[in-house]
Amino acid sequence: MDIQEFVAQSIGCWKSQRSAHHLAFGHFEAITSVIDIVNLPIDDPAVVSLCQDYATDLSQIVSPFRMIWEGETDWDEKPTKGTCVLVPVPDSDRHGKLLRDQGYAEEMAAVGHYHFTDDGTFVLVTEYDRAAAEEKIWFVNPNVRCRVSLIKTSAGNGVVTASFSSEIRQEQ
Amino acid sequence: MDIQEFVAQSIGCWKSQRSAHHLAFGHFEAITSVIDIVNLPIDDPAVVSLCQDYATDLSQIVSPFRMIWEGETDWDEKPTKGTCVLVPVPDSDRHGKLLRDQGYAEEMAAVGHYHFTDDGTFVLVTEYDRAAAEEKIWFVNPNVRCRVSLIKTSAGNGVVTASFSSEIRQEQ
Repeated sequence: MDIQEFVAQSIGCWKSQRSAHHLAFGHFEAITSVIDIVNLPIDDPAVVSLCQDYATDLSQIVSPFRMIWEGETDWDEKPTKGTCVLVPVPDSDRHGKLLRDQGYAEEMAAVGHYHFTDDGTFVLVTEYDRAAAEEKIWFVNPNVRCRVSLIKTSAGNGVVTASFSSEIRQEQ
Repeated sequence: MDIQEFVAQSIGCWKSQRSAHHLAFGHFEAITSVIDIVNLPIDDPAVVSLCQDYATDLSQIVSPFRMIWEGETDWDEKPTKGTCVLVPVPDSDRHGKLLRDQGYAEEMAAVGHYHFTDDGTFVLVTEYDRAAAEEKIWFVNPNVRCRVSLIKTSAGNGVVTASFSSEIRQEQ
């Protein structure tokens, strides 16, 4: 698995069930959403702008894409929705960076580091000022994806939130 | 990571939050439980009996253990509880079989095949008559484990249930 193959498999519309475990107080949150993942051209203005922000030449990037999500959580009355642009910058077949813009729901732009394990799991680690996120995504089959996200304290080991999504490809 | 190290890290008492996604009808189930994992001696009667059932010589096994769990689900009024004996039979450092007895909550005894990925994730695949289970377990740190379980149709690709547990070691 490389990043181009991974993005190609991810393109489409997904119905997602996500459970978030807020570990300190044992709370379960249930989120249902629809996620669209679409290819972007290399010269899309949002891609060009993000690359400029991170001093990245367009010749270094592959398979930029946009994610758009809209859903509901049982924890809060307001619906959760957002969009962001993601730009892979591979270092090798199995490692690289992933640039992400601010979008209208994310708090800040970020750059994460990804790699693939030998069983094709995509692992993304993103460091923030006060926290770190670790995400694992793998395909069970071409139409089912699993995603585990951990939010840790930046000091390292403490896990604050662990969440799991099962994502099923929708017919178009 | 090998199976002896994995079992050694797992020994203890864990508080588990588990979310099960019943994919066909989009249902979320929340289960809270306490799981005890204890070492067994090689010559424990339950270990000896299980090895006899699977024609396995005691010289082939390592690190037998017992799991005991008790918890509550929001889907059903009856508490969920059970115990079972698990016996690893390694073929090599990273592959082997895992024997499991019937316990008093499991439907049947079973033998699964495990391996470790290069990032230390334990992967267990168990085939039943009409279904297959795939389980991934990994340590985020010595006191936090994640576990993803998929129940698939035996025909192969259809995923029926996807569940996720976050498990935190309890002080003794």
